[in-house]
Amino acid sequence: MTLTHFDANGQAHMVDVSEKLATARVAVAEATVAMAADTLSRVIAGSAKKGDVLGVARIAGIMAAKRTAELIPLCHPLALTSATVDFEIDHSVPGVHVRAMVQTTGLTGVEMEALTAASVAALTIYDMLKAVEKGMVIADLRLTLKDGGKSGRYVAEGRKGS
Amino acid sequence: MTLTHFDANGQAHMVDVSEKLATARVAVAEATVAMAADTLSRVIAGSAKKGDVLGVARIAGIMAAKRTAELIPLCHPLALTSATVDFEIDHSVPGVHVRAMVQTTGLTGVEMEALTAASVAALTIYDMLKAVEKGMVIADLRLTLKDGGKSGRYVAEGRKGS
Amino acid sequence: MTLTHFDANGQAHMVDVSEKLATARVAVAEATVAMAADTLSRVIAGSAKKGDVLGVARIAGIMAAKRTAELIPLCHPLALTSATVDFEIDHSVPGVHVRAMVQTTGLTGVEMEALTAASVAALTIYDMLKAVEKGMVIADLRLTLKDGGKSGRYVAEGRKGS
Amino acid sequence: MTLTHFDANGQAHMVDVSEKLATARVAVAEATVAMAADTLSRVIAGSAKKGDVLGVARIAGIMAAKRTAELIPLCHPLALTSATVDFEIDHSVPGVHVRAMVQTTGLTGVEMEALTAASVAALTIYDMLKAVEKGMVIADLRLTLKDGGKSGRYVAEGRKGS
Amino acid sequence: MTLTHFDANGQAHMVDVSEKLATARVAVAEATVAMAADTLSRVIAGSAKKGDVLGVARIAGIMAAKRTAELIPLCHPLALTSATVDFEIDHSVPGVHVRAMVQTTGLTGVEMEALTAASVAALTIYDMLKAVEKGMVIADLRLTLKDGGKSGRYVAEGRKGS
Amino acid sequence: MTLTHFDANGQAHMVDVSEKLATARVAVAEATVAMAADTLSRVIAGSAKKGDVLGVARIAGIMAAKRTAELIPLCHPLALTSATVDFEIDHSVPGVHVRAMVQTTGLTGVEMEALTAASVAALTIYDMLKAVEKGMVIADLRLTLKDGGKSGRYVAEGRKGS
Repeated sequence: MTLTHFDANGQAHMVDVSEKLATARVAVAEATVAMAADTLSRVIAGSAKKGDVLGVARIAGIMAAKRTAELIPLCHPLALTSATVDFEIDHSVPGVHVRAMVQTTGLTGVEMEALTAASVAALTIYDMLKAVEKGMVIADLRLTLKDGGKSGRYVAEGRKGS
Repeated sequence: MTLTHFDANGQAHMVDVSEKLATARVAVAEATVAMAADTLSRVIAGSAKKGDVLGVARIAGIMAAKRTAELIPLCHPLALTSATVDFEIDHSVPGVHVRAMVQTTGLTGVEMEALTAASVAALTIYDMLKAVEKGMVIADLRLTLKDGGKSGRYVAEGRKGS
Repeated sequence: MTLTHFDANGQAHMVDVSEKLATARVAVAEATVAMAADTLSRVIAGSAKKGDVLGVARIAGIMAAKRTAELIPLCHPLALTSATVDFEIDHSVPGVHVRAMVQTTGLTGVEMEALTAASVAALTIYDMLKAVEKGMVIADLRLTLKDGGKSGRYVAEGRKGS
Repeated sequence: MTLTHFDANGQAHMVDVSEKLATARVAVAEATVAMAADTLSRVIAGSAKKGDVLGVARIAGIMAAKRTAELIPLCHPLALTSATVDFEIDHSVPGVHVRAMVQTTGLTGVEMEALTAASVAALTIYDMLKAVEKGMVIADLRLTLKDGGKSGRYVAEGRKGS
Repeated sequence: MTLTHFDANGQAHMVDVSEKLATARVAVAEATVAMAADTLSRVIAGSAKKGDVLGVARIAGIMAAKRTAELIPLCHPLALTSATVDFEIDHSVPGVHVRAMVQTTGLTGVEMEALTAASVAALTIYDMLKAVEKGMVIADLRLTLKDGGKSGRYVAEGRKGS
Repeated sequence: MTLTHFDANGQAHMVDVSEKLATARVAVAEATVAMAADTLSRVIAGSAKKGDVLGVARIAGIMAAKRTAELIPLCHPLALTSATVDFEIDHSVPGVHVRAMVQTTGLTGVEMEALTAASVAALTIYDMLKAVEKGMVIADLRLTLKDGGKSGRYVAEGRKGS
């Protein structure tokens, strides 16, 4: 099996999907922003009242999903029908789990849109907390679910810690 | 210490940096794309001749560095003076290490630009290999070096595995 | 009735429209740029011969309609089928009425596209005349017509002055 | 006095500012989103707990300030040093006052950036409330303060209602 | 026959295509970057091993195709289904022939997308070689093939030199 | 002399310009859109009264100059201080000569900005006339003047036909 993003001569191209069917598609991507317990406490405080780190990161992730095709060179432009970004505080890391879900009815899947949304949401969390802690790590960004299209359903073997 | 991206009322804002000095600044960010050994072998084959996955990812990362302020809501727009993205094949992961370095002479640091470049380069690697392996993980995206500006030099304690 | 852009937990999201029908949709938005009579006379002079303020503003408005989903965080990306921006000189204000009409065949309405086109066209008029008069006011930006989709036809009660 | 955005032949151009001095500049723009009292009560409820309309609109306004030169054809690209968007609930309208302040150290003023930020923040408020009330009006978008540069300080005569 | 991008009053608008049929469409555009034989030899050397000028230009062209509607004011936004950029070394010029092919299933043709891809790929070649030779010329950018839609198939009479 | 956009290993990068001096820089690029005499007559008619093809193309070119760094992968982002696009009708071609001039005070030259402006202005002319004539050719896009910076003044040997 060859890499679909390259032709027989090894030249990169945007794959021809004109023969594909427009079907309902969904993808979910997840990542974890690991940080010090003290940094996490500021995130929690902000969610409660002042300095809503996660609220800003959510908007950044959703907006980034819409711009995926501008960032990933061989990704097809898509009209998304839904995009959500959720967060879960995890004291055991300590850190914040990021989960992005994107849907479309179209010719190609939305894995890259979900991954880009999760990635930019995590980067935005980093940006807003970096004055407090530069050593945060964005860990384990991965696709956890994909459905729709010819290749069918994919579920990752389990996310970290579950 | 409060979060600088929020004012006294907890409202998000783009921090006023007009009193900062324009100094030479540099930042380096790293991440690892972990994959199956068989997937990695395709990357290596491509670098040698056909299907230059890493060449495409490098361009994507450099271009993304220039668009960081569009993606990260409270990030200041900056005129970058340099941007590089390098890769290292690591059979022990197995996977590819991504390393982005960005420089500017300006009022704010370029940590977010380096992290964004590394992140988008890693996502592009994922995009081009996902038909072969959906379970790849983008692991340990972090800032490893920062210099310039009032807060001085920061070196991460060491990257995973070294 | 709750706000559709927030889920049950109050978290912002891009609403799932995948179950909506693709229908023909249209929206019209209007605004007025109020200015001194002397400033208006320059606009009129330009339209006749030199310094075509309204010609530039029209292009800016049409181009902005295409980028609405990049500006409005929870707005769905759409493939527009038509966009027009018209102007009417009104000595009684004195000022310029802006009217933007946008059409699509899609899953969501184009109210935001029409409003964004009218808004950016008005801002462009301001930009080109601000050296002459800083006190211009962009007044009464509103949706005046919407049709298509489940919620049906909406006509505003009448625009200012008519 | 001729319009600076057009040359002697009436052709639009981006004005040459290379002889201008880089000075500290600031601009403030304001607008009002007028709505029904019931709609306003939802905004207030959201600010308190669920559905933070104003938090989302603030981010949209700040991000739009950074993209002003892409939207307004003859506007110079600028590296902003600060951007804030604030809101004030006004039961007497009833509605929400929007106030955007932008700063830079540069060759040109930031009036358009402040106006664009206020405009997009207001449009985002409209977007999130339009399912409840389509008849909202974005009223009286104007420049209220400008300082820095050769033309000096400008203060609007007072905003509507004060 | 009048120009379709202007209405009866001569005002520019984005043409209404809502009554058009969504059909498979393709367009091919070509251009030639003419340069000194010595400059061309560096391109050839790069393709073989170091400094892959054409690989970078290919990515730039494909990415530009996706952004055509942002650049060309009255061009409709489109979801492309395929985009490729190919190069051919021609010692007789001496120079590099650029050929971009774009496909979609949609309401409008993709001529502008193919032309924009070819143009930006050629500009990128220029950018990477300009330190060696400023006198390169991007010659004869033209549409060579168009098919699909009501106006049917168009084939250019032949490209320069063939 | 090696290609500056590639490092010693042949990897593309955005060249480090942090040691360069910020000087006044200017670049001029030209191209010709060749078309049938009948097509040209429509352009001329439009300039006089209805359907201002060149007015729209001028705005498109100026706006594209500002986005050059987004299109050309290894191009540095720059704050332009001036951008103009001019046209000259030439019955002897027959066609339209396009001339773009861009200025900045910065660390790198603005050749790519001028070339991009001329290219997008020419493409916009093509877009608006293509319903009349698909066989138009954008010929001889080239840099005709460059000044400022260490490499000094460059003047092209003369443009086609002069």
